[in-house]
This record gives sequence, structure tokens and C-alpha cells, in this order.
Amino acid sequence: MIRRLAIIGVGLIDGSLARALRQAGMVEEIIGCGRGKDNLDKAVELGVIDRYTHDVAEAVKQADVIFLAVPLGAMADTFRAMKGHLADDAIITDGGSAKASVIEDCRAALGYLPSGFVPGHPIAGTENSGVEASFATLYQHRRIILTPTSETSPEALLRVEQIWQACGAEVTRMSVEHHDEVLAATSHLPHMLAFSLVDSLARMKANDEIFRYAAGGFRDFTRIASSSPVMWRDICVANRKALGEMMDRYISEMTELADTIKRGDGDHLLEIFSRAKNARDRYIDGISDSPE
Amino acid sequence: MIRRLAIIGVGLIDGSLARALRQAGMVEEIIGCGRGKDNLDKAVELGVIDRYTHDVAEAVKQADVIFLAVPLGAMADTFRAMKGHLADDAIITDGGSAKASVIEDCRAALGYLPSGFVPGHPIAGTENSGVEASFATLYQHRRIILTPTSETSPEALLRVEQIWQACGAEVTRMSVEHHDEVLAATSHLPHMLAFSLVDSLARMKANDEIFRYAAGGFRDFTRIASSSPVMWRDICVANRKALGEMMDRYISEMTELADTIKRGDGDHLLEIFSRAKNARDRYIDGISDSPE
Repeated sequence: MIRRLAIIGVGLIDGSLARALRQAGMVEEIIGCGRGKDNLDKAVELGVIDRYTHDVAEAVKQADVIFLAVPLGAMADTFRAMKGHLADDAIITDGGSAKASVIEDCRAALGYLPSGFVPGHPIAGTENSGVEASFATLYQHRRIILTPTSETSPEALLRVEQIWQACGAEVTRMSVEHHDEVLAATSHLPHMLAFSLVDSLARMKANDEIFRYAAGGFRDFTRIASSSPVMWRDICVANRKALGEMMDRYISEMTELADTIKRGDGDHLLEIFSRAKNARDRYIDGISDSPE
Repeated sequence: MIRRLAIIGVGLIDGSLARALRQAGMVEEIIGCGRGKDNLDKAVELGVIDRYTHDVAEAVKQADVIFLAVPLGAMADTFRAMKGHLADDAIITDGGSAKASVIEDCRAALGYLPSGFVPGHPIAGTENSGVEASFATLYQHRRIILTPTSETSPEALLRVEQIWQACGAEVTRMSVEHHDEVLAATSHLPHMLAFSLVDSLARMKANDEIFRYAAGGFRDFTRIASSSPVMWRDICVANRKALGEMMDRYISEMTELADTIKRGDGDHLLEIFSRAKNARDRYIDGISDSPE
């Protein structure tokens, strides 16, 4: 049972967590913390939070569980604002999609890693954002990755696992480095490919004609290039080490493929395409639908 | 009016053309030519063709319009089989998704480019293939690109335009080089990105775990990597010049992006992502749905 939950951000991710915990009867009081008054008033009106403050220190002071749903680029400031105001046994977790940077921001701001800090990443979301888009079942059957630090206490880890399980999620533990590598491969890199494909076509001469002939596959393929540029800037900066390595690996793969095409080496092309098709058919179609 | 139409291949693309022309009352007799007896019997049963032969020479002999829907890798053999059997005023067109290679195959096989040859590319299709998947409305409001050669007669070009218009399609003319460049950019390159993304992940250690965490965006993004490896081998070999150049351009764009990420240059990243998002939102969402 959570006596007082503080959610920092008050959007889709933490709003859905709040709704799910409320519905599960897991929480007594929910305090929202954010900047926009209209958004926070809306959150109260929707019953997602009970009351709110614009002050992070105020929000975390009496909270026994704190959930950070601010953009990766705002994590450092948020941790700094918490400094000296955390209860000794406070549980802190977050929803950032890169983990090494959040942990580094926490350590730099507080001077240490609290034993109650359990970094996390819910692999869930929708195309909509904002607290009005939040709903209690967002996390049902979704994966949550927790990446405990060297300082995380077993009790805190267990508590955060139970919180997510109460929302219907499947919880997995992973090392920080492994999380950042897996996400670089499966989410961050594909976004880079889509952004740079659209950008490189937009920069070609006669690009309006190019886009006019873009077929259905192209539309599906580039849909993720319509994601928030600010969020993706933050993710790239936060996960630059793992993502930079993944991009190097990919660029060398593409360079080899380009050479194979220029040589007209049909046998090698068939081998690459068959391996890719088999991998995709085998792995991906077995996975239940889960928007990023 | 077409007295005798010969369709070579007898699958989704030429089957749909046959159905549409039949429905428009544009054709008296349709002869199918292909290898598989079962498929051809099915095409007769469905009323797509009136009769069939396995022999290309036989099929084209008395035809006034010939439509080639064979894989790009089979074009050369098909033109060779036609040699010496074409009627003087025969109209020949095709559905190949690269055009320079088809024209080259024709010239090499026949020793000249017939004035009745009008290379074409319908930008239409579905996820299904085979004559059973064909339907009369496939080309309605779809774009057809015609790329006349230096030898194409104005009469033949007009005739092929009218044939496609009778199917409800919008016909555009384009130079061969421009067609191959536009298609390399909007269709062939995206397929290469998807194939090589899936392949590079499949080759990583612990790839089953990588795929397990692949989110919804990844699935959309890599759907086209489940396309036919044989068809894509043929397309890559046929369009290797334009596609090779497009890949070089893309690789240098990706290399610049990788450097920007490694430097953690947030301002430049924001600029790239914003430009891509604007281009996609502006161009793509205005386009009516048209599967590749």
C-alpha cells in the first residue's frame, strides 16, 4: 500500500500509473507536480491526482513513493530540486527510456544514489500524450524493465516490482548497460533511420515529386519520423554511447550491402534478405502488439 | 478496344489488369501465359483469362497488346522467347519496378527497341500475390508511371495511357532515369534499411532478447523486411545504379547523424528531427493510401 504517491510530470505515462494504482486500491493519496496549471487542474478534474504543487521539493517531502515522468533532458534539474527533501525511506522510480544517464543525473545532483532509487522503463505508450490520454489499463501485459543500481536495496526493488505488477505489467530486471543497448537496437536506432531517411529525401532536389510517389510501405516505414523532435533529441543525448555504437555497427552493415548491390551480387543479396525475412517472421510475429 | 490481350505471368498485377479491362468492356479475348498449370487453370476458372499456353511465342503471336508481369530477373528470357513472334503493330508494356534494366533486356534480346514498347510501372499492389488475389479495382486512383523509350511511337504511348485510364488509374510520364531514381528513394532504399536493420539485429549476440523487447514502432518499421527475398534481389540487381547512389547518399547522412549523436550536439539533432517531422507531416499525410 502506498500512503502518498508523488508523480512528477503528470502526462500519459505517470497519469496511467496513477489511474492503475488507484483502481487497484494500492494508493491513498496522489500528489501531482508539474508546470502547467491547466494540465494539473485537468488532472484533478479527471480524478488522476488529488492535489498538486508546482514545487518538486514540496511534492516529494511527504511522499513514500515518487515517480519521475519528466523528459530525459529535465531529469538533472528534477533531482537537484529534490535534494534535501526526500524522506529517508522514500522509493523513487522513473520512466526514462535511457537509464545510464538518469542514474548519472541522480548521482550528480544528490551526491549519492539513494537505496530507494529503482530506475525503470515501462515499454508502453500510445500515439497520444498528456494526462487526458492516460488510462488505467495502459500497462496490462506490457513489459517493464527495472535496472537496479549498485545501491538499490532489495526491499525497494521488490516494492517497485509489486507496484508494476498491481498495474498488470510483466516486470523484468536488466543491467543498466544491457537496457541501454537493447533499447538502442530496437527503438532508438529505428527512429534514427526513419528521421534520416525522411530528412535525406527532403533535402533532395524535386523532393515534392519524390514524396508524391512514396508508396504505402514508405508511409508505414517513416511513421515514427513524426515523433516529437524534442523527446528524441533528449533520448539521443542521454543514450549517445550505446546508440553511437549501434549506429556504427549499422552503418558498416549498410556499407557492405551497398557494395553488394553495386557489384550486382544476387546470391549474397538473396542470403541477406532471406536471413532478415526469417528473423522477422520468426521473432516479431510471435510478439503480442505493444506500442512503443 | 483490344482484340487479343496476352498477359505473361498471370498473378496479382496482370490478373487485376485483365479483370479491369474485361469489366470496362475493353478487351475481346485474354490469353494467359505462365508456368504453373494449376495457377493457369485457376485463372480460367475465375474468368481472368479465356485460355492459356506455356509458350511465350505462342502467346504473343496473335496478340495486339502484351503485358509482361514476370519478375525482373525473368525479363531477359521472356524477351528472348518473343523474338521473331511479335506482330508488327503489337503494343508491349510491363509492370517492372525498375525500368532501365527492362529496356536494356529488351534491346539485348530483340536487337532493337520496338516502337510499340511502352515500359511502365503501376504503383499499386497488396500484401497478397497470385491470380486469386487479383481484383478489378486494384488500379483505381493509383498512379501508373510510363517511361517511353527514344523509339516509342506516340500512338503506342497514347494507347497504353488509354488502357490504364480505362482501369481508373492516373497516368504520368517520366524519364527512365528519373523513374529509377524516384523509386530507389521512396521504395527500394526503405526496403534496404528494413532488411539490414533486422539482419544486423539478428546477427547480434542474444538476439532473441533483442527481438523480445522490440516495441510497436519496430514492428511497423520492419514489416517490409518480410517481403519476398527473391523479388528484392531482382530489384536490387536491376536498379543497382540508382539504388547504389541513393545508398551512398544515405550512408553519408547517417554517418553525420552518428557523429552528431556521439558529440551530444542537441541543437543540431533538434534541427534534423524537426526538419524530418515537418517534411513527413507536410508531404505524407496529404497522400491518399496506396500500398506499394
